[in-house]
Amino acid sequence: MLKEFEIIEKIFQKTPTSIFLGIGDDAALFHKNKKEFWVISQDTLNINTHFLSNTDPENLGWKSLAVNISDILSMGGNPKYALLSISVPSANQVWIKKFSTGLFKCAKNYGVELIGGDTTRGSLSISICILGEALQNNALLRSNAKLNDDIWVTGELGLAALGLKYKKRKFDAPKTLIKKAIKALEKPLPIKVNMKKLAALCNSAIDLSDGLIPDLNHILNKSGLGANIFIENLPMPKWIRNNKNYPLVLSGGDDYQLLLTAPKNNHKKIIKFAADNKIKISCIGLMTKTKNIAIIKSDGEPLLYKKKGYEHFA
Amino acid sequence: MLKEFEIIEKIFQKTPTSIFLGIGDDAALFHKNKKEFWVISQDTLNINTHFLSNTDPENLGWKSLAVNISDILSMGGNPKYALLSISVPSANQVWIKKFSTGLFKCAKNYGVELIGGDTTRGSLSISICILGEALQNNALLRSNAKLNDDIWVTGELGLAALGLKYKKRKFDAPKTLIKKAIKALEKPLPIKVNMKKLAALCNSAIDLSDGLIPDLNHILNKSGLGANIFIENLPMPKWIRNNKNYPLVLSGGDDYQLLLTAPKNNHKKIIKFAADNKIKISCIGLMTKTKNIAIIKSDGEPLLYKKKGYEHFA
Repeated sequence: MLKEFEIIEKIFQKTPTSIFLGIGDDAALFHKNKKEFWVISQDTLNINTHFLSNTDPENLGWKSLAVNISDILSMGGNPKYALLSISVPSANQVWIKKFSTGLFKCAKNYGVELIGGDTTRGSLSISICILGEALQNNALLRSNAKLNDDIWVTGELGLAALGLKYKKRKFDAPKTLIKKAIKALEKPLPIKVNMKKLAALCNSAIDLSDGLIPDLNHILNKSGLGANIFIENLPMPKWIRNNKNYPLVLSGGDDYQLLLTAPKNNHKKIIKFAADNKIKISCIGLMTKTKNIAIIKSDGEPLLYKKKGYEHFA
Repeated sequence: MLKEFEIIEKIFQKTPTSIFLGIGDDAALFHKNKKEFWVISQDTLNINTHFLSNTDPENLGWKSLAVNISDILSMGGNPKYALLSISVPSANQVWIKKFSTGLFKCAKNYGVELIGGDTTRGSLSISICILGEALQNNALLRSNAKLNDDIWVTGELGLAALGLKYKKRKFDAPKTLIKKAIKALEKPLPIKVNMKKLAALCNSAIDLSDGLIPDLNHILNKSGLGANIFIENLPMPKWIRNNKNYPLVLSGGDDYQLLLTAPKNNHKKIIKFAADNKIKISCIGLMTKTKNIAIIKSDGEPLLYKKKGYEHFA
């Protein structure tokens, strides 16, 4: 099913563009001035594909913008402007007000201004175009990971996937964890930092929307490299680790954290940046020559891993 | 029903922005450099709201981009980049290929590059964000129409509305006209000119998506003026004129032609610009102090007019 989705995506990628970076990364880049790029991206969330019909509208408003902000961050950019197209089956003011409350809270939190859009009748769907700014010298392309780069991830992984499993009633876990997991699913929190500064310490990045392994694979494919990932270094809730429920962490989607690769020389600077900015960051592996991913357990043994990521057309 | 739609639109317009022009015109404007604005807009087309399910996919691809190009032109801008989010119920390659053919033909025709977007599963919906460039001195705001300005429209009006009526089987007319009308509905042709040059001759503009009168009303409301419109000057197919089917012309939507207001001093220059660029343009009236619209017949009598425009939530 992955193939079908990829094929139709490629139909729209056929024409080369005059800009610095077109379709194929988390966002496109075009020149703003001599030092900066405009970073631009557009993502859609559809009912029953990207969120369940019982999703809290305020959280949905937050998430709709947050997932787009995540795309700007992953290019090394700071988000700036957003345009919202929302299709709703009826003009339900109460619902729309709650949705807009969440959206504007998220906008305020990340310094984004809503500058345009469209409100139309249709199946519930939210499409946001987002613009940000990145320094030309420090834009983080998927293609720019280097051999022996440290691999970093922000935040904690697997929570959103756990939340989704619970909501689909396929899973159970401690109540406090479930609460946290549903929050992670419905109200993702991309890091809130001056991304231009973090980007100056890194080589490449991607945001974790499809899952750690599928998203890491995009970097490997574009950079022509492989990776070693150390299970013990992966940031995850204790309960997931104790139950060895690694697929939630390795291929669960919707984390909206960043995966970054950075020169080893910057290891301490990144730790310091994270501490100064009160964000959680974990060094989870390194870039290798092998062109595949080795997932290594604490005893040094590789983990058997069934590749599966979040796939919209699955 | 108009009220409901307006209320939910306003929910998203509550916060002021730092940019030159935010939500409330055909597009937003923010500074590109000392002389130019970026013009940015996003429009969505949903199945059964904006197009019928039997619409030819190639035409739909064309129209999806054309209606967005129209928004850039109406601000006095030239379109440049587009991002496409398309939701489709299944990965139907044949359909998507036809759609993309139409989209890329339109992009090529108007010099637009597709630089990003998203392909997802959902009810058929197309959301395009478009960026263009306008000269700061000549951006065409709805609020900038002046007393005694000539009112101009490009192309011919009422065809798309006739096409829609026919497709809904509520109307019949000569076959050749119907063919032309369906083409106007399914494959609108915004003018193809260097809009920066036309804008230099004008004060304000809006694109005709909802209908001549509803769209003209937006200019009147924002500019605090009224208008006289002369029926005999309105560009329309002979059959419509002979049958006095004026509502098609006055309140039929989907024309995607421009309504412009311009100083009388530029009257001849505009005629010349249109001739040089092989576009049809008609002077249909003038801006008045009255704050309402008088539609005047050839005998000088006002026409009784039942106000009704295309309304998504109607």
